Amino acid sequence: MSSTKTNPGYFFEDYHVGQILNHATPRTLHDGDVAMYQALYGPRFAMQSARTFGAFVALDDLITFHAVFGKTVPDISLNAVANLGYAEGRFLARAQSGDTIHSVSEVIGLKENSNEKTGIVWVRTHGYANGDRPVLEYVRWVMVRKRDTSAPAPETVVPDLAKAVEAEDLQVPEGLDWSNYDFAMAGEPHRWGDYEVGEIIDHVDGVTLTDPEHMMATRLWQNTAKVHFDVTARPDGKRLIYGGHIISMARALSFNGLANAQLIAGINAGAHANPAMAGDTVYAWSEVLDKAETTNPHVGALRLRLVATKVNAGELRGEDGKYLPDVLLDLDYWVLIPR
Amino acid sequence: MSSTKTNPGYFFEDYHVGQILNHATPRTLHDGDVAMYQALYGPRFAMQSARTFGAFVALDDLITFHAVFGKTVPDISLNAVANLGYAEGRFLARAQSGDTIHSVSEVIGLKENSNEKTGIVWVRTHGYANGDRPVLEYVRWVMVRKRDTSAPAPETVVPDLAKAVEAEDLQVPEGLDWSNYDFAMAGEPHRWGDYEVGEIIDHVDGVTLTDPEHMMATRLWQNTAKVHFDVTARPDGKRLIYGGHIISMARALSFNGLANAQLIAGINAGAHANPAMAGDTVYAWSEVLDKAETTNPHVGALRLRLVATKVNAGELRGEDGKYLPDVLLDLDYWVLIPR
Amino acid sequence: MSSTKTNPGYFFEDYHVGQILNHATPRTLHDGDVAMYQALYGPRFAMQSARTFGAFVALDDLITFHAVFGKTVPDISLNAVANLGYAEGRFLARAQSGDTIHSVSEVIGLKENSNEKTGIVWVRTHGYANGDRPVLEYVRWVMVRKRDTSAPAPETVVPDLAKAVEAEDLQVPEGLDWSNYDFAMAGEPHRWGDYEVGEIIDHVDGVTLTDPEHMMATRLWQNTAKVHFDVTARPDGKRLIYGGHIISMARALSFNGLANAQLIAGINAGAHANPAMAGDTVYAWSEVLDKAETTNPHVGALRLRLVATKVNAGELRGEDGKYLPDVLLDLDYWVLIPR
Repeated sequence: MSSTKTNPGYFFEDYHVGQILNHATPRTLHDGDVAMYQALYGPRFAMQSARTFGAFVALDDLITFHAVFGKTVPDISLNAVANLGYAEGRFLARAQSGDTIHSVSEVIGLKENSNEKTGIVWVRTHGYANGDRPVLEYVRWVMVRKRDTSAPAPETVVPDLAKAVEAEDLQVPEGLDWSNYDFAMAGEPHRWGDYEVGEIIDHVDGVTLTDPEHMMATRLWQNTAKVHFDVTARPDGKRLIYGGHIISMARALSFNGLANAQLIAGINAGAHANPAMAGDTVYAWSEVLDKAETTNPHVGALRLRLVATKVNAGELRGEDGKYLPDVLLDLDYWVLIPR
Repeated sequence: MSSTKTNPGYFFEDYHVGQILNHATPRTLHDGDVAMYQALYGPRFAMQSARTFGAFVALDDLITFHAVFGKTVPDISLNAVANLGYAEGRFLARAQSGDTIHSVSEVIGLKENSNEKTGIVWVRTHGYANGDRPVLEYVRWVMVRKRDTSAPAPETVVPDLAKAVEAEDLQVPEGLDWSNYDFAMAGEPHRWGDYEVGEIIDHVDGVTLTDPEHMMATRLWQNTAKVHFDVTARPDGKRLIYGGHIISMARALSFNGLANAQLIAGINAGAHANPAMAGDTVYAWSEVLDKAETTNPHVGALRLRLVATKVNAGELRGEDGKYLPDVLLDLDYWVLIPR
Repeated sequence: MSSTKTNPGYFFEDYHVGQILNHATPRTLHDGDVAMYQALYGPRFAMQSARTFGAFVALDDLITFHAVFGKTVPDISLNAVANLGYAEGRFLARAQSGDTIHSVSEVIGLKENSNEKTGIVWVRTHGYANGDRPVLEYVRWVMVRKRDTSAPAPETVVPDLAKAVEAEDLQVPEGLDWSNYDFAMAGEPHRWGDYEVGEIIDHVDGVTLTDPEHMMATRLWQNTAKVHFDVTARPDGKRLIYGGHIISMARALSFNGLANAQLIAGINAGAHANPAMAGDTVYAWSEVLDKAETTNPHVGALRLRLVATKVNAGELRGEDGKYLPDVLLDLDYWVLIPR
């Protein structure tokens, strides 16, 4: 059985540098998504939990991230072997309930692998609300299969990506007023000045993953990659958990110790170090990598490493420099926190 | 322990032709239902995904179907042995977020089975929004147990049902403007004229079913049939999955190849060919059965067979003419698609 | 790995009588929560199901209960060994979609146990909507671990709690108009006068519990107690189900026989008699304990015992007076029902 109507997804040789991909099916985000997100991860950050907190009404930044990301899957990662990295991510404006999100990606790099069976595709993705308001941009790169291994290799173009977003390039939302920030209602007293570079924060709690939850999460963002849903898609009969599920779970766990890290401003780098499956228990810890002031006198920025692991311990890499098998996520990102 | 207060449901001898059943508990549909539906099935049809797409705001037609259907369960299928078929289904208007749905059924046929233990009940169900706006009507028939096997058989009345809804009886929503339909944002370029009668479309992807998901889906529509929830209700200790769960899953899978089949206009026939259980992996394929123009010059109708199976193959019936054991659903329905 | 930033929760010696706990992270309730609640429990009470029913728009009272309760967990039960009881619970006003809930608790009793390792803490919790509108108050008491077993015992203060809320203290919502109550649409004909003290109502249906569902329910209310989420938190490798999950499941099952018990007015007492785990099948029965008129001529009050069990039978206690091992919940509460 075959069909000329169904979309097989793009293979490596279908991409060229400069190509623009207008991803299909815009998606209106609304309060229902907020409740699903709440049920799936249990976040407690006050600005997304209560509309009265600071009178700042916005969706969780990771809802925006998943919505923008989900749109790109049919065109970028349907035939992907691996999701290799993120860089130069910036949240540019906050999406509100009722906003319609769509995504556009540009291919900015290509490199065929020496095995001639796969190649690496770099794209810069732009997410928009309601047609033209930029809400998020980021670079990600994936390893994609070739349809035809005899297809010639494209010219290698490896983009020059920043190690981290510069603090002065982070967008502080206009009108964000933390002059009377209520630390008691937010859950913790720690402000920007209380965190030190090099400090490690253990987020204590663990959550054991289940298949129905990660499938519901993944479908919510219209991410259609087969390995998340079909037990016959992998030799081990297991469903691979969408990496974004781990990001959201770790971010929700990080409330304990980072309750005032209300907004995500940038994504510097990220690695899904090992696959996650149902039955794994996820713990998280954070390291403060850098600190910066912003143009808003009440708002500071922290650069954090957020690590999700399957054991409640702080080891990240083995003696060989590789991620230990229990590490699921190593995310380098910027948050905004009251000064 | 027993009670005079609890509802045992209707048995076969409780029905008579012409009987009107005003089903209890109207249900207001809202954005929360949209998010649950998104999480459970992952649909990507643009008109329900984005409020900006064609400026046409409506709930997924299957949300309306499930809400109308769910209301009928306590009065029609609580003591049902089998859900036998559907006919003459028409979507008459689109429900919006905020609409309150209720259902009324009329008994239009009765036939006791030769075993004198069960009988077949035909009902025509009407779904209304906000009291009096018809949104959906359909006929379904179920096999229902007798309370008392010695009760006399009613006069047999078998309704004369159309094999399919006539294309000219399909309702095209007033104000539906597809003159500037955005095929790129909808996800596929295929319009009405690109489909041929007899064409088969393999929807490629599979989804492995789980118990928590189908129970949440079934409760969402206030469908209370015991076999879906209680592992002690069947000898095999398994929960039978609500047939509507398979319809929604197959419809969502059908996006891949039928992305522009935005609206469901009619249900001609349907068989839940075999029971579905957690652990089954559902695939889907469609066959174009018929094509018709509509009164709207930009809107065409396709009559489709949507088949859900447990193996990714196109076989439907065995040499004996019976459904193969891997077939879960055979649904004959009309969709509206841009011409 | 440790951190000065993370919250270890309160231990027994951290409490003193008269202490006020302003619980963090207010939570805005909305339609998304309504849909999640619908999917998790399947309630059919007409006043919460349909906005048109009696033109009375309100969230399910148990949504308010869970939201208020969830706020208290990080400050009261994070180190709790057991949730021992409830008393003097009153629903004071109905929360609407869009209301923001926060909770404040006062410590009203303390008693160290003779083992010197744990103690009992009594708190009176007040839930508010939008800052200052009281929606719920109740007393609960929990057994909490000591951080340091050598810490001196506090003076014992055991509060004098009412066996039940007096009927005249129940709040009937202002503007509640049941003069034209639609019994047919509500699902059952039984009004206040049809129930007799001592009457037992078997709610018939059973639901088998799953881990993903109770975790989603628990996170929805930002309840973070570790034993619900982390399979390594208990020696048996099982996740303990949040007691409130059983309350909501039993209440939803009680529709069958108590369809007109639309609103919860008071909580007199409650015991989570035995732990519930995934795989348990929950049944429910009710006993009418008392009846009272209210100041509204169309509104009566019933005092009910709602019992959830793992076997479909009416036994509650063994010959020793203790709860039988299959009993999960024994809740004594007041409902409002049309007279």
